[in-house]
Amino acid sequence: MARHLTIAVCQTGPIQRSATRAETVDRLVALLERAAAAKAEVAVFPEMALTSFFPRWEMEDDAEIEAFFEEAMPGQETRRLYEAAAALKIGFALGYSELDRSSGKTRRYNTMDLVGPDGKFIGRYRKMHIPGGTEASAGTTTHLERRYFELGDLGFPVFDYCGVRVGLALCNDRRWPETYRMLGLGGAEVVLIGYNTPLLLDEAPSLGHLRMFHNHLPMQAGAYQNTVWVAAAAKAGNEDGQQLIGGSCIIAPTGELAAQVTSLDDEVIVHRADLDLIAVCRKVNFDFELYRRPDQYRLIAERAGPL
Amino acid sequence: MARHLTIAVCQTGPIQRSATRAETVDRLVALLERAAAAKAEVAVFPEMALTSFFPRWEMEDDAEIEAFFEEAMPGQETRRLYEAAAALKIGFALGYSELDRSSGKTRRYNTMDLVGPDGKFIGRYRKMHIPGGTEASAGTTTHLERRYFELGDLGFPVFDYCGVRVGLALCNDRRWPETYRMLGLGGAEVVLIGYNTPLLLDEAPSLGHLRMFHNHLPMQAGAYQNTVWVAAAAKAGNEDGQQLIGGSCIIAPTGELAAQVTSLDDEVIVHRADLDLIAVCRKVNFDFELYRRPDQYRLIAERAGPL
Repeated sequence: MARHLTIAVCQTGPIQRSATRAETVDRLVALLERAAAAKAEVAVFPEMALTSFFPRWEMEDDAEIEAFFEEAMPGQETRRLYEAAAALKIGFALGYSELDRSSGKTRRYNTMDLVGPDGKFIGRYRKMHIPGGTEASAGTTTHLERRYFELGDLGFPVFDYCGVRVGLALCNDRRWPETYRMLGLGGAEVVLIGYNTPLLLDEAPSLGHLRMFHNHLPMQAGAYQNTVWVAAAAKAGNEDGQQLIGGSCIIAPTGELAAQVTSLDDEVIVHRADLDLIAVCRKVNFDFELYRRPDQYRLIAERAGPL
Repeated sequence: MARHLTIAVCQTGPIQRSATRAETVDRLVALLERAAAAKAEVAVFPEMALTSFFPRWEMEDDAEIEAFFEEAMPGQETRRLYEAAAALKIGFALGYSELDRSSGKTRRYNTMDLVGPDGKFIGRYRKMHIPGGTEASAGTTTHLERRYFELGDLGFPVFDYCGVRVGLALCNDRRWPETYRMLGLGGAEVVLIGYNTPLLLDEAPSLGHLRMFHNHLPMQAGAYQNTVWVAAAAKAGNEDGQQLIGGSCIIAPTGELAAQVTSLDDEVIVHRADLDLIAVCRKVNFDFELYRRPDQYRLIAERAGPL
């Protein structure tokens, strides 16, 4: 029998710093309802879907910083989203800032959780490729993620979602071919991605017009080269004075854009993903077992930078 | 001072089985003259630029097979190309079928040599990702490369070409992200590629309309993700009854198509590649030393196929 998974990408417009968690969760529940009404079986929300993209600011005070983080997931304010999922029978992937005190030390991660259509936790991913720097003076005023987040320490896990193998990634992860390859080797059929991408690049204004091209190019290549479905949700629009690109999309294992948003607001796009297309695409070019040369790729896992 | 390398892609139309080596070398010399007239400093020719793409046929007889191979490079018939390079002061990368008897055993490789503007050999690459099968009955009538070629055994070398770091790749290699990553980690600034790509896919006719998209997508992503210039030369047109796609191109480290052919014939395209653009692109997203996580990528170098 043909296998399908109907995927919804739930893009959000800006989530201003002034918004309460309750207001934001209201918006996410409304998006989830629209996804469920379109018969979607899983939804993906943006990276840091519960707050403004705060790494654009340089903050010192722990209390001020930790107001952007979740210590429990679900917590008091987010529980409604999980209850909505169970009621609507649609799971989701949600990006948020995670405060982990389980080791006795405070650790902060840029995290995405996968939740099942019963509203129960399935698995967690912590962003592996944290961009930017730690100080605004480094000239990376829009990317202070390394100030606030530790590097992901959970590998590139692939989870069983109702019989479909699903991997997760966040924002900058999508630019690195290793992300898709690790998930592809992990057996992923679907990769769910959340992102926040500023339109303006302080570091290279001459490349600004290529931001959307550079959003889609590595995701389309990653889908094609690993024969996976990719579904990616942006947080978009003018958020606290900073313009974020949209371009949320669903990409087939052929690399084709199957669906794409046309706004910078809260918007849902849905595609019924044909999982059997994966085997067709794999057969043509990408029989990994037959054609890859892992012993020849050692440098990739040995060295960070160029020789 | 700004660094540039003016690159010529020398696409060829079909090279029929009935053509003599002398006739074919005449065409390559004519292309090299056009490249030099356009002030190019290096030219790239297709994969198997001296013969028809013979792996479309199932052959048994060693003499019949070896008529497509070169035992010496340059040999008697190819020497003129090297002499033209020296006279015109333009080097080249040339794809050909290599017969290596140096070990006492006959070995056959799908090979590309890099030759300097003095007409002297710089370095050799042997195709790492050999597609297709060994028997026509496997349903891969257009891809019997594994019948005729051993797997490349020279790694992914990067050569010094007049002060520019140049890597080589052949056809199917361009679809695998590891090719570009290995060359990028090897310090490549420019990647020269030759290919022969049939328009019709026996294995998946439903993907036929995507052949050109699947030609450019992984090369554009490879250029972007490794901040290298990519220049790729096709053998194109109706060759011995089989239609080969063209689409030869020069791609910037931004992933943008900087130049592209518009024919399926012998055609030269030239672009003055700004090598300083590499550092600009690298700074924005791809500071490998700072952001890559090699210890997290071990599976890529350990396993061929998915878990």
